[in-house]
Amino acid sequence: MVLIPEVSKLSRSAFRRLGMTPPKTPDAPPARLSLISRHLAPVYPINTPYAVERLPSTVDTSLLPRIQVREITTTTPKMSQPAHPTLLIPGPIEFDDAVLQSMSHFSESHVSAGFVATFGETLSMLRKLFQTTDPASQPFVLSGSGTLGWDLVAANLIEAGEDVLVLGTGYFSDGFADCLRVYGANVTELKAPVGTKPTLPEIEKALSEKKYKAITVTHVDTSTGVLSELKNLSALVHKVSPDTLIIVDGVCSVACEEIDFDAWGLDGVVTASQKAIGCPAGLSISMFSGRAMKAFENRKSPPSAYFASMKNWTPIMQNYEAKKPSYFATPSPQLVHALHTALSQILAKPVAERFAGHKAASDKIKAAIGALGLKQVAANPDEQAHGMTAIYLPEGVKGAELLPILAKKGVVFAGGIHKEIVTKYIRFGHMGVSVLDPTRGDIERAVKALEEGLAELGYTKS
Amino acid sequence: MVLIPEVSKLSRSAFRRLGMTPPKTPDAPPARLSLISRHLAPVYPINTPYAVERLPSTVDTSLLPRIQVREITTTTPKMSQPAHPTLLIPGPIEFDDAVLQSMSHFSESHVSAGFVATFGETLSMLRKLFQTTDPASQPFVLSGSGTLGWDLVAANLIEAGEDVLVLGTGYFSDGFADCLRVYGANVTELKAPVGTKPTLPEIEKALSEKKYKAITVTHVDTSTGVLSELKNLSALVHKVSPDTLIIVDGVCSVACEEIDFDAWGLDGVVTASQKAIGCPAGLSISMFSGRAMKAFENRKSPPSAYFASMKNWTPIMQNYEAKKPSYFATPSPQLVHALHTALSQILAKPVAERFAGHKAASDKIKAAIGALGLKQVAANPDEQAHGMTAIYLPEGVKGAELLPILAKKGVVFAGGIHKEIVTKYIRFGHMGVSVLDPTRGDIERAVKALEEGLAELGYTKS
Repeated sequence: MVLIPEVSKLSRSAFRRLGMTPPKTPDAPPARLSLISRHLAPVYPINTPYAVERLPSTVDTSLLPRIQVREITTTTPKMSQPAHPTLLIPGPIEFDDAVLQSMSHFSESHVSAGFVATFGETLSMLRKLFQTTDPASQPFVLSGSGTLGWDLVAANLIEAGEDVLVLGTGYFSDGFADCLRVYGANVTELKAPVGTKPTLPEIEKALSEKKYKAITVTHVDTSTGVLSELKNLSALVHKVSPDTLIIVDGVCSVACEEIDFDAWGLDGVVTASQKAIGCPAGLSISMFSGRAMKAFENRKSPPSAYFASMKNWTPIMQNYEAKKPSYFATPSPQLVHALHTALSQILAKPVAERFAGHKAASDKIKAAIGALGLKQVAANPDEQAHGMTAIYLPEGVKGAELLPILAKKGVVFAGGIHKEIVTKYIRFGHMGVSVLDPTRGDIERAVKALEEGLAELGYTKS
Repeated sequence: MVLIPEVSKLSRSAFRRLGMTPPKTPDAPPARLSLISRHLAPVYPINTPYAVERLPSTVDTSLLPRIQVREITTTTPKMSQPAHPTLLIPGPIEFDDAVLQSMSHFSESHVSAGFVATFGETLSMLRKLFQTTDPASQPFVLSGSGTLGWDLVAANLIEAGEDVLVLGTGYFSDGFADCLRVYGANVTELKAPVGTKPTLPEIEKALSEKKYKAITVTHVDTSTGVLSELKNLSALVHKVSPDTLIIVDGVCSVACEEIDFDAWGLDGVVTASQKAIGCPAGLSISMFSGRAMKAFENRKSPPSAYFASMKNWTPIMQNYEAKKPSYFATPSPQLVHALHTALSQILAKPVAERFAGHKAASDKIKAAIGALGLKQVAANPDEQAHGMTAIYLPEGVKGAELLPILAKKGVVFAGGIHKEIVTKYIRFGHMGVSVLDPTRGDIERAVKALEEGLAELGYTKS
């Protein structure tokens, strides 16, 4: 249990954006000191399910080693990664240099004051990304794939036999439904045809037929590129079934599609690190409302999972955010550092700008795809995601032939995954640095490669 | 789902075709070639629970970019990490430079041929580390904390109402018991006094009183430094209760204590990346016997977790190891690369040497601690772990005072965690590079710091 401070060096404006007081001059010793003392301040109690050890504050900060300095880059740094094909699948995405560098952070104790501060700041930054200021909202960052977020919902917010309405948009809503069933939920799936989403009248009808504990919506179904609208959906649920928890699978939407957690009255958004957040895979990231946390606390039965138990993790997350060391299972300091860097970069600008940037890039991509005479799986412009595009292949062109050609041109797209159309389409992911840093030219190269690749396979626009 | 080879080193001609400048290659091409063709081999079918897409092998491998070449370092490279206090807690441990560098690997598709090969090799290397050649043995590498391994056991190998005997050695066996109960196991805990382990006669008696589906043993309980002997224990279980699955929590033992999976007839060993394996935290790593996998297949009820479901993961792990891309939930390419590097380093020498190296270092440390007049929590030499030492503090010395003094001297130890003695002892982790690379001098510095720190607090050997 150690007390080594971590010192992050933020720009003055970054400090303000993060709601912190900027130091007077960036490198003046007094400025550093406050940072250090903030991190160090306390010697925190250790909290485990079994033991609480309270330690006195005896650390002489002047003798403590300084920590690797994280730079917050508001512009993307020059890429120093080895040459590699540009990854334009719907996650993982291309990562910023500084984020990848954070992955190599030297080893730290998961309960050291420095790491605890980093983790705590990370959780606080998530509140800003999700646009929630309600102190009852609860963020979670767990080691795991994005899929673990489904377990978090299914094993903690739902009890065996309770009804859940799953809005069916493709592969990923099917998966969420499967997960819910494993933990005993009584699932009703309201499925839309491939490339579309259930309509509000259909949802209203379903909600009026049964009292659901929760409704789940896949914000962007990565299998089809279908975007579900959340604002009107939430308003509808609040109106016709106000007790129903609104749970969003935001794996392919958080940090590229607008999510206004408080304003829309969402109860849960689960996501992963490797998509628009721009941090390598390995973290399940989620936010739950005070109402959802209350539903959890009011369970009659204990949570039905152990590693994914909110009972085990809630006090840990709360302690980390209060900068108190705490232990249930060892988090990944390196991944948390990378997430801290990614979130610091994201929050250096208003999130609205980020969403607008993704929309602008998406509009261009979709126009270019239309100009090539190609159709999208999500035909309706209102239902098209802004961080990915699912593109139907022209007649006679096989993904198995086209994708390797694109790879040779240095651009990696993904194949299909929706069982009904799996060989008929490809997926183009456009999130994070690839769209927000125009100097990279990723999108232009991708569109050009697609055009050339199709031509090489004999396709001409009819 | 794409069939793009991993490209970190492109062939010189491929670079030119991609319009990039080829780097100067330090290595002779022919040496690289076998490596490359092995990685690149074929275009594989994609396997998901919903879709199996079989794609023809149409990739012209001569045009495909080369793979980042991972160097296998049999000696520890010069440390280029920023100065930081030496982390000598019982996990996470200090990491080798090459391992940390692998954490910064550029972004790759989780179904690219390059990454699939890396993951597949990683799984195969685990067989060597665990010393199993039985093809029915099944390795798993999942994103998650080590704790997730308990869920894997509890939700897949045990059905609700089945009896499990948990050998109680401290905090971590208590945790395993809790996890088993969450998934419905009927748990009997055979608890030993702090600092000891249940004896073979006690275990034999317990096994004779009830028919247990499984027995769990915490190989090294990180809360006490108690080592449980596995060879005679396994022989006993096989003799008196041959149908009982033998499950080992090896979080603090795999890669520093001998584990002879096949020879001892173990059925499951679950561990984590951040201890003696020497890879940053974030991976749950496990090995199950053919018998355990059969027990899983013969379940009457479906697995009781989703993300931790063997039903979801077994085909994925088997496909990865067969070098076929496959998807259930996105793994962390960066962590898997780091694990690949760590395992490559470990397996560059016979594992017996590694175990002997940890034992030799542990013997020295324990002798030094004895010479300081200090007692261990595990009093009996036969019950002392070789990768950590739990040390009782002398009367009047508080961990809360000693640990910060050690930190100032550049050495990070851990406080206590066992509820019965939490403030009375500290923990010293000695695993991986800190013991196997004597040029680092980590252990000598730690012992010296401990001696000086105690003296500063007024301790003299009585």
